[in-house]
Amino acid sequence: MSKDPLRGGRLGDGRPSEVWEYLSSKDADKFIGESDILVDIGHLLMLNRQKIIDSDSAKAIMEVLLSLHKEGLCDSVFDPKFEDVHAGIEAYIIDKTGSDKGGRLHMGRSRNDEVATCVRIRLREDILEILYRIAGLRGVLIELAEENKTSFMPGFTHLQYAQPTTLAHYLMNYEQAFGRDFERFGDSLLRVDLCPLGAAAFASTGYPIDREYTAELLGFSGVLENSMDCVSGRDFCLETISACAIIMTNLSRLCEELIIWSSSFAGFVNLDDSYCSTSSIMPQKKNPDCAEIMRGKAGSVAGALSASIAQIKGLPMSYNRDMQDLWPHLWRAVSDTKSSVEIMTGMIKTARFNIEKMADEAGKGFSTATELADVMVRNYGLPFRTAHGIVGRSVRLGKLDLETLEKASLEMADISLKERGMDEKSVSEALDVEFSVRERDKTGGPSPAAVSKSIEKRNYALKEDIEWTFSVRNNIDKSLKNMIKQAEELIN
Amino acid sequence: MSKDPLRGGRLGDGRPSEVWEYLSSKDADKFIGESDILVDIGHLLMLNRQKIIDSDSAKAIMEVLLSLHKEGLCDSVFDPKFEDVHAGIEAYIIDKTGSDKGGRLHMGRSRNDEVATCVRIRLREDILEILYRIAGLRGVLIELAEENKTSFMPGFTHLQYAQPTTLAHYLMNYEQAFGRDFERFGDSLLRVDLCPLGAAAFASTGYPIDREYTAELLGFSGVLENSMDCVSGRDFCLETISACAIIMTNLSRLCEELIIWSSSFAGFVNLDDSYCSTSSIMPQKKNPDCAEIMRGKAGSVAGALSASIAQIKGLPMSYNRDMQDLWPHLWRAVSDTKSSVEIMTGMIKTARFNIEKMADEAGKGFSTATELADVMVRNYGLPFRTAHGIVGRSVRLGKLDLETLEKASLEMADISLKERGMDEKSVSEALDVEFSVRERDKTGGPSPAAVSKSIEKRNYALKEDIEWTFSVRNNIDKSLKNMIKQAEELIN
Amino acid sequence: MSKDPLRGGRLGDGRPSEVWEYLSSKDADKFIGESDILVDIGHLLMLNRQKIIDSDSAKAIMEVLLSLHKEGLCDSVFDPKFEDVHAGIEAYIIDKTGSDKGGRLHMGRSRNDEVATCVRIRLREDILEILYRIAGLRGVLIELAEENKTSFMPGFTHLQYAQPTTLAHYLMNYEQAFGRDFERFGDSLLRVDLCPLGAAAFASTGYPIDREYTAELLGFSGVLENSMDCVSGRDFCLETISACAIIMTNLSRLCEELIIWSSSFAGFVNLDDSYCSTSSIMPQKKNPDCAEIMRGKAGSVAGALSASIAQIKGLPMSYNRDMQDLWPHLWRAVSDTKSSVEIMTGMIKTARFNIEKMADEAGKGFSTATELADVMVRNYGLPFRTAHGIVGRSVRLGKLDLETLEKASLEMADISLKERGMDEKSVSEALDVEFSVRERDKTGGPSPAAVSKSIEKRNYALKEDIEWTFSVRNNIDKSLKNMIKQAEELIN
Amino acid sequence: MSKDPLRGGRLGDGRPSEVWEYLSSKDADKFIGESDILVDIGHLLMLNRQKIIDSDSAKAIMEVLLSLHKEGLCDSVFDPKFEDVHAGIEAYIIDKTGSDKGGRLHMGRSRNDEVATCVRIRLREDILEILYRIAGLRGVLIELAEENKTSFMPGFTHLQYAQPTTLAHYLMNYEQAFGRDFERFGDSLLRVDLCPLGAAAFASTGYPIDREYTAELLGFSGVLENSMDCVSGRDFCLETISACAIIMTNLSRLCEELIIWSSSFAGFVNLDDSYCSTSSIMPQKKNPDCAEIMRGKAGSVAGALSASIAQIKGLPMSYNRDMQDLWPHLWRAVSDTKSSVEIMTGMIKTARFNIEKMADEAGKGFSTATELADVMVRNYGLPFRTAHGIVGRSVRLGKLDLETLEKASLEMADISLKERGMDEKSVSEALDVEFSVRERDKTGGPSPAAVSKSIEKRNYALKEDIEWTFSVRNNIDKSLKNMIKQAEELIN
Repeated sequence: MSKDPLRGGRLGDGRPSEVWEYLSSKDADKFIGESDILVDIGHLLMLNRQKIIDSDSAKAIMEVLLSLHKEGLCDSVFDPKFEDVHAGIEAYIIDKTGSDKGGRLHMGRSRNDEVATCVRIRLREDILEILYRIAGLRGVLIELAEENKTSFMPGFTHLQYAQPTTLAHYLMNYEQAFGRDFERFGDSLLRVDLCPLGAAAFASTGYPIDREYTAELLGFSGVLENSMDCVSGRDFCLETISACAIIMTNLSRLCEELIIWSSSFAGFVNLDDSYCSTSSIMPQKKNPDCAEIMRGKAGSVAGALSASIAQIKGLPMSYNRDMQDLWPHLWRAVSDTKSSVEIMTGMIKTARFNIEKMADEAGKGFSTATELADVMVRNYGLPFRTAHGIVGRSVRLGKLDLETLEKASLEMADISLKERGMDEKSVSEALDVEFSVRERDKTGGPSPAAVSKSIEKRNYALKEDIEWTFSVRNNIDKSLKNMIKQAEELIN
Repeated sequence: MSKDPLRGGRLGDGRPSEVWEYLSSKDADKFIGESDILVDIGHLLMLNRQKIIDSDSAKAIMEVLLSLHKEGLCDSVFDPKFEDVHAGIEAYIIDKTGSDKGGRLHMGRSRNDEVATCVRIRLREDILEILYRIAGLRGVLIELAEENKTSFMPGFTHLQYAQPTTLAHYLMNYEQAFGRDFERFGDSLLRVDLCPLGAAAFASTGYPIDREYTAELLGFSGVLENSMDCVSGRDFCLETISACAIIMTNLSRLCEELIIWSSSFAGFVNLDDSYCSTSSIMPQKKNPDCAEIMRGKAGSVAGALSASIAQIKGLPMSYNRDMQDLWPHLWRAVSDTKSSVEIMTGMIKTARFNIEKMADEAGKGFSTATELADVMVRNYGLPFRTAHGIVGRSVRLGKLDLETLEKASLEMADISLKERGMDEKSVSEALDVEFSVRERDKTGGPSPAAVSKSIEKRNYALKEDIEWTFSVRNNIDKSLKNMIKQAEELIN
Repeated sequence: MSKDPLRGGRLGDGRPSEVWEYLSSKDADKFIGESDILVDIGHLLMLNRQKIIDSDSAKAIMEVLLSLHKEGLCDSVFDPKFEDVHAGIEAYIIDKTGSDKGGRLHMGRSRNDEVATCVRIRLREDILEILYRIAGLRGVLIELAEENKTSFMPGFTHLQYAQPTTLAHYLMNYEQAFGRDFERFGDSLLRVDLCPLGAAAFASTGYPIDREYTAELLGFSGVLENSMDCVSGRDFCLETISACAIIMTNLSRLCEELIIWSSSFAGFVNLDDSYCSTSSIMPQKKNPDCAEIMRGKAGSVAGALSASIAQIKGLPMSYNRDMQDLWPHLWRAVSDTKSSVEIMTGMIKTARFNIEKMADEAGKGFSTATELADVMVRNYGLPFRTAHGIVGRSVRLGKLDLETLEKASLEMADISLKERGMDEKSVSEALDVEFSVRERDKTGGPSPAAVSKSIEKRNYALKEDIEWTFSVRNNIDKSLKNMIKQAEELIN
Repeated sequence: MSKDPLRGGRLGDGRPSEVWEYLSSKDADKFIGESDILVDIGHLLMLNRQKIIDSDSAKAIMEVLLSLHKEGLCDSVFDPKFEDVHAGIEAYIIDKTGSDKGGRLHMGRSRNDEVATCVRIRLREDILEILYRIAGLRGVLIELAEENKTSFMPGFTHLQYAQPTTLAHYLMNYEQAFGRDFERFGDSLLRVDLCPLGAAAFASTGYPIDREYTAELLGFSGVLENSMDCVSGRDFCLETISACAIIMTNLSRLCEELIIWSSSFAGFVNLDDSYCSTSSIMPQKKNPDCAEIMRGKAGSVAGALSASIAQIKGLPMSYNRDMQDLWPHLWRAVSDTKSSVEIMTGMIKTARFNIEKMADEAGKGFSTATELADVMVRNYGLPFRTAHGIVGRSVRLGKLDLETLEKASLEMADISLKERGMDEKSVSEALDVEFSVRERDKTGGPSPAAVSKSIEKRNYALKEDIEWTFSVRNNIDKSLKNMIKQAEELIN
């Protein structure tokens, strides 16, 4: 049956099997098989409209394409005897329609622009899915924040109790970060969603093709102009992988905290059993495996970025085969990101935060000492740096009560706090957790009032982001639907 | 004289010198020293307006700040005996004004938000400079393309002669890629240009500060809201370093070509002596050192990206000291990018392309074979895949003339090309370089007509990009000028 | 039938399918399935000898294990419903022997030490195979060098013709580099080939196990001592991946040269068709795809290294699930290295070097100018730096003949070369390629005599390396054979 | 005065200042300035012995070199007007001795082999220093382990309490890992400590040099043979940076634990004030800054490795200027490693472990549940997997007492533990921490007896490692001393 249509002319047929395997892109091809059919359909409609192909050939090929589109690709097109899925599909078409007809589909294009177009179509889908999932995660965080505006907890710097805050404030921190991740994927989508088809090998073609028309059929927002750039530019991949690596880094930080918070030490959160595993030997264990795997995948995606930059660095124009070896990294980065956002959403949604334990700890470790220093500044006129020193010395002496403060103050600054009017009450008030948090009501601060305002703003931003994603989605769907309709009209 | 204002309270004073050195950020601090003074001025104006600081202290401190702003930082603030430049500046102020006054500047903020603000101010400057320089490089490429629309040359895939193209088409390929780099830096600027000041350690502050006011004074486009995110979010750095790594990758590809094109093999370009070096032993050598160093720096910046992702991965909220070690990578990435774009612009501008040699080579290596196959399809009715095979076989036989084609055609497809009307003339016409290029006049193609259209569009895009950069620049300058004016009014 | 034996006790059974998939290690498990059976057999023999398990259970389980060892693993053990292949195999055994017997195999060990042991067994195999293949590649290089001791060619620095050399000298350069790669893999093997079995979860076990005995059965060169290190140390992986990344970097350099040398520009080498591909559109193309893919894979393996370092960085003791996500990178690095060395060996072996073209080019580009400067030093008493300057100036003037040299010499140093006795003959002699190469007969130099000596030494080193590899291989094979024999005796 | 001796011949003098700066290697040159003088001295002694240089010139130059060796390099040799320190030193010598004498030093070598030799000399020093420091760290760990063989603590997997262990066992885990790091640096030293001098630009030289003699003078263990490999091989750098990245990864894990253990949650360790910092705003804070910076530096060094692999990948033979940009990464990696090992040694030595707190926690979190399951297997005949399930279910029910176990056992396996003779005493015995640890006395286990044996073995290994390092050190020192003696004899 069908053999690789590309060999036998310029090059001999024989080739050791380890070379076939070495050059094979079949794992990565799985990701773009379906896109390839769309590209073939769009290209064929254009060839037909421009009268580059005769109508009989067009119909014969289109029938095969539509059946592949509807019923899915058969395994044979991924056979390792073909250099790639594109050669596999072409062979399949020639097999079904004869080489006199099937051999005409590849006019006015090359694998170089074909692959680039397939990848952009698939990547567009993946980015859109990631955008939806990030939006979903942000929604869960906002909802949970809404419920926890007065859930006090210790805030950390250097993993030390630092100042009290609330769970809501903490969660909105991540919502804001993931909001930027959303923007980055949105930005990269604009550069992905351009059509390189028609660039052929890199120098465009002598056939009277219509690039704007195929771009429109395939739902692209425009044509990627310079034909050499079309086939050799890979910065759109590097940019998308960067966006993946960055959100994975953000996710890994949340994972680290879920791991620490659910540790034997902290007990701040109880993750749902579904997201945990036990040990094969230690029967009591409940381990936060999903969070750990996700932290690990953050490393994997960082590696995908390293790999792909190293691959593209120093490549001359235009196409070089090294570029094929970039695809596995792209798909891995995108898949890991997609699944990680989904798993995180579920993990957060089902987690039970131990609100009481958190509140108990909120004031420990002298975490309200900053407020105490501030009070000494505001009410008793000390310069901040002096008050900071006095409170620090008191902590070192082991206590934050009036006597110790007085002692430290006399020693360090020769100031009697008592003489300035400080009393036990003013000390204990300053050290109160709730008081300290409520005072922090500036823009973006942890006080319930400030968090409420933030939630309102962020909810609005999220709504807008979702609407934008929908509109992009709809435009693409409409175009593709229309294209299939035209394809069906052609064969009827 | 002045000692580190942060020790002596909570912690003991003694510390081995190797620890001071280990923790020191002084090299990276050089980048943000001047920004720190701006941040101090803005913060102090706000403290004063909000009546958080008394007017005498405000005036005394402002006098020191304005003198540092005008005369530049003195070396003593970088002294390694301070943990960092911020402690150094605070000590300097206390030294000049007394601790009762100077110790009051740090109210309502922390080093955490201070550093984040300084970095964003400096990074904003660097990104703007990079934007200008990319625009400059794009301008040079467009200008050179304008002059070389009919400078024919061989186009490459896999470093093999593939199809003829023009130098203009090749150059516009890079212009388009650098245009995307411009966009990426522009996008990242939007996320850099937000003000974290007032977030304090991460939990905001109890003082009645006004974050919107300081943001406006410092020329930011807005406030970065959540205070925990303000001090712990580092994705703005990762994103900027990514943009650097991606443009460096694009630049490295151009370098690779300049190196190959100026090699003993090719002789397509003669780089200006300024950008070359000779050998210490081989007197005849003229080496493309700048292009090689730039290719090397592409690796360096890729490493900066790897490093910074590895550093941020898995860090819990909020601030952790690891983050300090990210700065050197950020500044290195940004500096290397800035200088590389400048050097590339000069190198391209002064290069002499050997137009004649390029034109001579344009048709070699059977590079017009694709056109020949296309002609067999268009004029003699062969399916493309068959024509592709016949021409390939001919090349393998060593010649592309009518006799060889006929032989290959009969062997492979049992078709007589001669019988279908093919003659010597049609073969030689199809193989003509200029004919082949002029036919490729589709959107983005290499024909002079198509390139002319591209140049027009890209020139327009460039103009818009430059205007946008100017407007951002102007807004910032206006704000900062106004801030200094207010500061001067305060002390007069 | 069999269900995951690890759930239902500590944790609930239900779990969303996306979580199963997220946690799955099944692709990486393919690499260690067979090793796991070996580990099970060794462990069981030890349990039996130490009377930890009853003899009936031991026999029943061993029968299943031996059948899996001989007939290969059935697909069911990789079923995604199990957390990993180890749970899959345990379930299979329980299914075959009943839980009262089959449930006893896991005594005195944990998945943590089990996985670590499996990985080391498989990795040992892979490293040995890589060692053999590197030896093979070195052999091919030495053989080819032997044939090309007087095949003159231009040597390069900065991709510029620099000085003439020979193909043999060039090839021996790579042989020497790959010799170091051999050493690095050999070194890493010493740290891989230690047995962690018996460490259990990390704290060893209360059962009276005999770690030395299992280590011996499994052919390890010793026991890896500290039990916490056994399950948490991953530097043996990082080291092996480093060795892979380094040899891939060395290979990528040779690829770069094969690509440039086979380019339209150079024509120094003609790669065998098997290692090349053509274009889907340009019928004349013959592209060095294997060399390009290999250069790309060098980037992939570098990424695997980045990923795995980022994953292990900052992990606390002892086992964390992130570590599972390291395996795909390890296997990918090792597989890519294994196949790349094999492909390179074939590619070099079948390449036809264009000796005539190389020789023609050997003296071009003033590549013997260094010798000329040296002659001016040796025979006419000039200081080297002065002679270097004079020859450089001459090249700039475009010629290296007596008149131009005289002119340059008078201008730059006020020295008349003619007066010092220099004549046309001495100039042309100095510029002779063969003369220049034969003079370079110092240790490691390009002269045929020096290369001959190098070949002799390197051949000897290669022979020793091969013998060492054989002896390691034989020891392992003998141990494993003996283990299987004992296992068979147990059930008979 | 002195100007760059390399320009003015082949190339024009003029060059924009930004290009000088772009090409400058002056920061990295600081690392090899002193080595360069050694190389010059060795080379000159050889030139003199081989009568390549006249004795007057030799004496004149040697006087300058010896003064630079003794008094250190003057700043002028680093002046950016020279391409690098080598050109700077050559200019200095010419300036002092006149160009007729000073211009003769560079005979028979090139900057390519000169730089490679300097780097290897300096790197040899750095690696030796790292070896000493690792040995020091291992010594501290062993000593501390010796004191803490019965300091019980919880062992962790997934940051959950897993099984009890001892502080000694935990510390020896790291000692063993750092022992492998020692080996890796030792291995890399063997490949670093070979002399490339005499390879000249890459093709050796026509002068009758004696490479073995210079290698011996400079204390190398041998000659690096193939002259092309000498100047282009950079795998010795990649390997050393890998060794740095791997030990930094190991160190970062210990850092992570010091950070978590000193956190507000755990309180297992109290780091010495010297290694901590406080906050500029929160007066109570004591942050583990050194451990955090070290964890950050692990990311930096990983980035250095990424960068340098990306730089060398795909470089053709022989020297390319990209390689210059590798040096900063090499020196940064080596310096960070050197200081990190030192800081870690101090940090561990001065840390106060909270032995009581650790012991209190050792049995919490059902951490002895594995022993309980084992007892059910050993004493009451249950299969391990069944016992594992029963104990797991009990933990889920919240208790590990006889009643709960009985209930779980009946439910899950229909077995009455009571009927099999289990009583309260056997349960509580099994759950005893000390009992559990003492039972784990297999090779490498945590029991005091097993740890004692480990300590003995490791102490012996450490002693051997230190002796080896001393012997390498002594051989080098002896050679260099002898070389200087010969140099002094030359001028007297």
